[in-house]
Amino acid sequence: MKFVSFSHNGTPSWGCVRKQDLYDLGARLGGQFPDLKSYISAGMPRDDLADLGGADFALADVELEPVIPNPDKIVLAAINYWEDNTDPDKVPDYPVLFLRLPSSQIGHGAPLIQPRSSQKLDFEGELAVIIGEGGRHISPEHAMGHVAGYSIYNDASVRDWQKHSHQFTPGKNFVGTGAFGPWMVQPADLSGLEKGLALTTRVNGVEKQRTDTSRMIFDIPYLISYISTFAPLQAGDVIVTGTCTGFGITRDPKEFLAPGDVVDVEIEGIGVLSNAVEAESSA
Amino acid sequence: MKFVSFSHNGTPSWGCVRKQDLYDLGARLGGQFPDLKSYISAGMPRDDLADLGGADFALADVELEPVIPNPDKIVLAAINYWEDNTDPDKVPDYPVLFLRLPSSQIGHGAPLIQPRSSQKLDFEGELAVIIGEGGRHISPEHAMGHVAGYSIYNDASVRDWQKHSHQFTPGKNFVGTGAFGPWMVQPADLSGLEKGLALTTRVNGVEKQRTDTSRMIFDIPYLISYISTFAPLQAGDVIVTGTCTGFGITRDPKEFLAPGDVVDVEIEGIGVLSNAVEAESSA
Repeated sequence: MKFVSFSHNGTPSWGCVRKQDLYDLGARLGGQFPDLKSYISAGMPRDDLADLGGADFALADVELEPVIPNPDKIVLAAINYWEDNTDPDKVPDYPVLFLRLPSSQIGHGAPLIQPRSSQKLDFEGELAVIIGEGGRHISPEHAMGHVAGYSIYNDASVRDWQKHSHQFTPGKNFVGTGAFGPWMVQPADLSGLEKGLALTTRVNGVEKQRTDTSRMIFDIPYLISYISTFAPLQAGDVIVTGTCTGFGITRDPKEFLAPGDVVDVEIEGIGVLSNAVEAESSA
Repeated sequence: MKFVSFSHNGTPSWGCVRKQDLYDLGARLGGQFPDLKSYISAGMPRDDLADLGGADFALADVELEPVIPNPDKIVLAAINYWEDNTDPDKVPDYPVLFLRLPSSQIGHGAPLIQPRSSQKLDFEGELAVIIGEGGRHISPEHAMGHVAGYSIYNDASVRDWQKHSHQFTPGKNFVGTGAFGPWMVQPADLSGLEKGLALTTRVNGVEKQRTDTSRMIFDIPYLISYISTFAPLQAGDVIVTGTCTGFGITRDPKEFLAPGDVVDVEIEGIGVLSNAVEAESSA
């Protein structure tokens, strides 16, 4: 089953998707579960989905929101993939982690915003992990039991602001830069994660990044365990697992996104997250 | 008027303080304003405070919570004070900013937690700014009109985890390390901010940090304007304005906090934020 957050005529809701059909679970179960996060927090009870009947919308008729629009926290890893030329002696001892604010997120199909104050908007296609059961001091052995599902993230970055200081915060938190979607796929419906799912990023149809998820340096159990050492994980928390090479500033010559560009991030078994770039409005 | 968030017999509320008297505005106005953030968001209407009558509690009878327990965002500046030996040519062009999660916060009087995984807990006494009216692209000229009030922050840091990578995230987000209180003072009640309020940090009564708020490198209007360039500020957001020298790892020999130590951060005109260190429980 795939789960989405969406809005229809400006009203936020959430639901599940089968093929091109959307079942509006916010309308059906909203008294009990006002958003996808609250449904995840309750353990995603299957009974409520047993008899869905007819669909409420065609998927194409709604606007998708970030899969979790209101996570308690969004923790991201920086570069986190073995490349052909990675020197094992130079791999760091710990992951590089930073935080995103929910206000920076957008859903599948919404515009990536090139801010007025920068010409250096860049892309990073990544696998997102959504936490189910929360906890602290979670061991790597138990970590996968805390995963509610998987999605796709484009950790779009404003490179000059990211480098204003040694801390990434400004460049990773501009409005309209954290694309998250299109949906969440449950672990039981995503085979092959350990074997490795192909992850590719395309700009205007041209492939820029390619790896597979088995090539992470710090894997999902490690990330969950490490983060839960300092912060209590909660249902709906998002862990974005880092990028491989090939994003714009790693290229020669460097490439940045411009209004009209379309970025597609595809992960085998999950789908395609697609967002077009727009310039920030002038006032 | 001073405003607090507190709990009494485990029930969270908020209120205002006069001398040692606490008026429980959560109980009185909770239908309209369930927490201090919602009251700030409504512009802190004075009419509701015109006829308070008798106090509901003695201040000593409640547990103070972080002034804003549930901010949308907590943005912190790193080192941000001119010292006697600061080289103007080495001052960076932009502030160093990082984020804290609300789950790391504690109130005045609550224990600072030395985590099991570290012996390197350190203190940083700082001025906290609480945002009133939100906004984006706020100019420095208009920034002070967006301040709801001021408080005190101890940006306690787990130094070894802060240095696991070049990003501060883990070391700045341990549970029980962001002490925030005791209360919020409104701008009209805090004279002398521009002239400079004395800021001192003491450990077990011994002064470790001393500066005044006029010595910030990136001042409050600049910080508000800069942050609002990338993120929309909201009512109740917290900007922690950075530290001066004198914290533990700047000392020779280095000093770290141990269970039983008491850290007091005092800012002239606001008060004293005091927290004792406890070791994290073993299970």
